[in-house]
Amino acid sequence: MSKSPEEEHPRKALGWAARDPSGVLSPFHFSRRTTRDDDVTLKVLYCGICHSDLHKIKNEWGSSLYPLVPGHEIVGVVTEVGSKVAKFKVGDKVGVGCMVGACQSCHSCSNDLENYCPKMILTYNSTYYDGTRTYGGYSDTMVANERYIVQFPDNMPLDAGAPLLCAGITVYSPMKYFELSKPGTHLGVVGLGGLGHVAVKFAKAFGLKVTVISTSPSKEKEAIEHLGADSFLVSRNSEQMQAAMGTMDGIIDTVSAVHPLLPLIGLLKSHGKLVMVGAPDKPLELPIFPLLMGRKIVAGSCIGGMKETQEMIDFAAKHNITADVEVISMDYVNTAMERLVKADVKYRFVIDIGNTLTTA
Amino acid sequence: MSKSPEEEHPRKALGWAARDPSGVLSPFHFSRRTTRDDDVTLKVLYCGICHSDLHKIKNEWGSSLYPLVPGHEIVGVVTEVGSKVAKFKVGDKVGVGCMVGACQSCHSCSNDLENYCPKMILTYNSTYYDGTRTYGGYSDTMVANERYIVQFPDNMPLDAGAPLLCAGITVYSPMKYFELSKPGTHLGVVGLGGLGHVAVKFAKAFGLKVTVISTSPSKEKEAIEHLGADSFLVSRNSEQMQAAMGTMDGIIDTVSAVHPLLPLIGLLKSHGKLVMVGAPDKPLELPIFPLLMGRKIVAGSCIGGMKETQEMIDFAAKHNITADVEVISMDYVNTAMERLVKADVKYRFVIDIGNTLTTA
Repeated sequence: MSKSPEEEHPRKALGWAARDPSGVLSPFHFSRRTTRDDDVTLKVLYCGICHSDLHKIKNEWGSSLYPLVPGHEIVGVVTEVGSKVAKFKVGDKVGVGCMVGACQSCHSCSNDLENYCPKMILTYNSTYYDGTRTYGGYSDTMVANERYIVQFPDNMPLDAGAPLLCAGITVYSPMKYFELSKPGTHLGVVGLGGLGHVAVKFAKAFGLKVTVISTSPSKEKEAIEHLGADSFLVSRNSEQMQAAMGTMDGIIDTVSAVHPLLPLIGLLKSHGKLVMVGAPDKPLELPIFPLLMGRKIVAGSCIGGMKETQEMIDFAAKHNITADVEVISMDYVNTAMERLVKADVKYRFVIDIGNTLTTA
Repeated sequence: MSKSPEEEHPRKALGWAARDPSGVLSPFHFSRRTTRDDDVTLKVLYCGICHSDLHKIKNEWGSSLYPLVPGHEIVGVVTEVGSKVAKFKVGDKVGVGCMVGACQSCHSCSNDLENYCPKMILTYNSTYYDGTRTYGGYSDTMVANERYIVQFPDNMPLDAGAPLLCAGITVYSPMKYFELSKPGTHLGVVGLGGLGHVAVKFAKAFGLKVTVISTSPSKEKEAIEHLGADSFLVSRNSEQMQAAMGTMDGIIDTVSAVHPLLPLIGLLKSHGKLVMVGAPDKPLELPIFPLLMGRKIVAGSCIGGMKETQEMIDFAAKHNITADVEVISMDYVNTAMERLVKADVKYRFVIDIGNTLTTA
């Protein structure tokens, strides 16, 4: 019954796909739908490599279907717009993030929180309304409903701006929702990787006092001198941690490895908020007494809605916030994935799709 | 240097104290300070038995100092007031809850949250400003700074009202702070004991939809017919739990035994709040992914400030909320503690101090 990926839509597309849990990516011919009335079609120019791409190509979360074209930090130029599209025109620089659909009728959708819609459709490795699979941004073209398109301001670099579509909104949204964006607030940022380094930049732009908490003493200079953090704690240095007890209003925890929460809860003031944005695959140990004694909160947060994503990009453009990126060619992607496993990147790989995507 | 408990203050007092971690209580002669300018002295009439009294007399939290006179759900009649006391007069019916002091200058104290003051002084087993130990309400008299005295409205029964000073405020405060008190809100209450049964009563008075979640199917009739809960879930019945997934705005979890959080997080709607008010002595397993996917919160809450405690008592009086109590005589207290271990009480023991406290 079902057609092959190459035949199911009229528009030919070229991407790089993983074929099995080895996660090795290679050229893949598939197709994209034609531009519908409310669709925007773009030529992809850049796509960031998110850590979740790595999990997905290796099926580490158990939900991967192959062939799988990853990529949800997609930036490109509009090549076609549907007849009902008013917000975008050919030539616009735009982005597509983690999602391309949601029910538009549930409580979350009604509150511009499509990201929490139970029927949210992910940009790749999901099933679209028409029953076909979604393929991500490691590909030459992209088509999405205009609701899921973000306008890139003129001064936002396309390569270094791409990671904001996932890493940026992931840290921006909880700072806003959990009231951690007021000037003077003391924010801890745990982990200085793709998410963490962007969190520091947004936090400083909000006027916060920022302390980076990391297992790596070697990152102190970088955190303070380059990223502008106010202070730095080595999480394994109990003396440093002890001295900082009860000083933070909130913490954004970007670490996706299993790690102890007790020291982080201890860093919070009473009524402080520890917000998890990394996703450890095993449960963490939660001590209850320290939560009670200070009415503290451990919360989760997952990307952000489309309205907030646009707000975040506009805010970033205004404050010259971009990710620190290493731009790579498409054929370097498998090496990049190996380096990502070792956290050997400052801080985000971005694939130069426009100039380097070929079948070779 | 230091005087004996019987000699350190001018006013003779009689209580029942635990002498060692066996937790057995017996008559104990000690003393209370004279009434200072801003003090209120009361004759104790009733004192509730909180589950934490049991932990403390047996040194299960490791901080007990003997002899230890427990009791922080204290109700009595004012016998003397200091010269600067304006709010209370001799003959008033008043209560003393979990605390008798705080710094009055920290951020928490400045916001009427003395309960989160790092220097908060507990009603018993703490050290007071003058260096003497604090003794609780299993005793004939009590002296406290007027700031820590709660006025009992005329229509509030003294025996059944006593447990509100701890159990009541413990569940009332998080419903207010975490915005779970708006009519129509769907609240889960985990555990139907001293805290849980009062939580159901407050929740119904707020106009909430209330679901009791318990391991004991036998409590269903009681929860619905007697306490007025709207529905009941047996937490070990996976079919029932599955059917209720994603339906609750918040949950007040009163269970102090180690128990799984994952099913409770599953019961929450997106942006829902799981508030722990029981204190398991070991860490619980916290799965992070389910928190992220719905921007959910796990929080702790610990009693409430004095202003809010007065507000709670006034609200309870207005809505005829009291605890369900079994009034006992002082000499029954050791038996009551044994029954409390087995959760064999509906739902709170209250000692009739006024009529039964003797040296016998």
